[in-house]
Amino acid sequence: MTTQRRSSSNTSRRNEASRRAILTAAFELIQEVGYAKLSIEGIAARAGVGKQTIYRWWPSKGAVLFDAFLLMLGGEQPPGGEAALPDTGDLEADLKTVLRATVEELNDPRYDEPMRALNTEITHDPALAALYAERLDGPMREMKKRRLRSAQRAGQLAEDLDLDVAVEMVWGPLLNRWLQRSGALTPEYADSIVETALNGLRPRH
Amino acid sequence: MTTQRRSSSNTSRRNEASRRAILTAAFELIQEVGYAKLSIEGIAARAGVGKQTIYRWWPSKGAVLFDAFLLMLGGEQPPGGEAALPDTGDLEADLKTVLRATVEELNDPRYDEPMRALNTEITHDPALAALYAERLDGPMREMKKRRLRSAQRAGQLAEDLDLDVAVEMVWGPLLNRWLQRSGALTPEYADSIVETALNGLRPRH
Repeated sequence: MTTQRRSSSNTSRRNEASRRAILTAAFELIQEVGYAKLSIEGIAARAGVGKQTIYRWWPSKGAVLFDAFLLMLGGEQPPGGEAALPDTGDLEADLKTVLRATVEELNDPRYDEPMRALNTEITHDPALAALYAERLDGPMREMKKRRLRSAQRAGQLAEDLDLDVAVEMVWGPLLNRWLQRSGALTPEYADSIVETALNGLRPRH
Repeated sequence: MTTQRRSSSNTSRRNEASRRAILTAAFELIQEVGYAKLSIEGIAARAGVGKQTIYRWWPSKGAVLFDAFLLMLGGEQPPGGEAALPDTGDLEADLKTVLRATVEELNDPRYDEPMRALNTEITHDPALAALYAERLDGPMREMKKRRLRSAQRAGQLAEDLDLDVAVEMVWGPLLNRWLQRSGALTPEYADSIVETALNGLRPRH
């Protein structure tokens, strides 16, 4: 009994070590060789495991990438955890802080290729998109909506505003510019998005 | 002299026919096999040409896709041509017409996979992104800005509005929702984006 327990615990430790090795290998490799050349074979070789080990745990390259991404985010932003956006009472300032941080992250060469790759897999794989929505985008969206709801209650946002549309209005243009490489992502651009989303395109008299 | 001219004209006709066969093959194949399995080999086999013919004219799979996409758009929306967005004087109605048409296009299964593939290539290939900006996104953006400028002159948009940011505010959320598969693209969503972008998130008193 004791022996069996110890052995099962050893197996679980070994599995956890392999899992981490695989995810770390995927994350490092994609930065080195780029998305197009990332393969399950390459990840297995780098992690020192067999291809079958990877296929046993993940259905696709995209699914490996997704977990590598979650591991990388680590403690920083626990999806679904108690994380919250800053709330100083000044919505405009708080959103600028958040969008400037996003700009910095998107401009970080360590994250650029893995994040582009994850977006690519999501674009082409509805199953992964559903997983992403459930485990990462959903919790993040709830966190954003909580901040907007607090502003709405304080009368700083329109009463009939659809908060899902509002979230996409603030974050969508930034992500789209990044994915399409249609312009530079600067702190000034982040500020400008926040101001334009809050005030709208029409004149305010 | 005459013979040479005829022969050169024959070559040019043959080249044009091969070019069209390659682009049509690429466009059909991507709908059938999907982005991940689209290869230069496959395109060459379907078009009945050698791989070298494709590599002589295009530097990458993405570049072939881009030209296939331009051919598909065909007369419909000549980039850089005299195309214009509707201008009835009612900006909100006109933008809703345009965004509803975009929603319909993005929901069309014939275009879905090729457009996702093109976006993927752009995301991972800065050279293709530059070509896309110059030949497709740039002219389209100018067309959008012309419509917004006309509204701005009529006092319907804020005087100090940055029209590039305005374009991204109207089209960015839609494209981002489509790429990330984060929600359904419906005519109502298109309307809601236009209203929210024009009015802004803050209350209007």
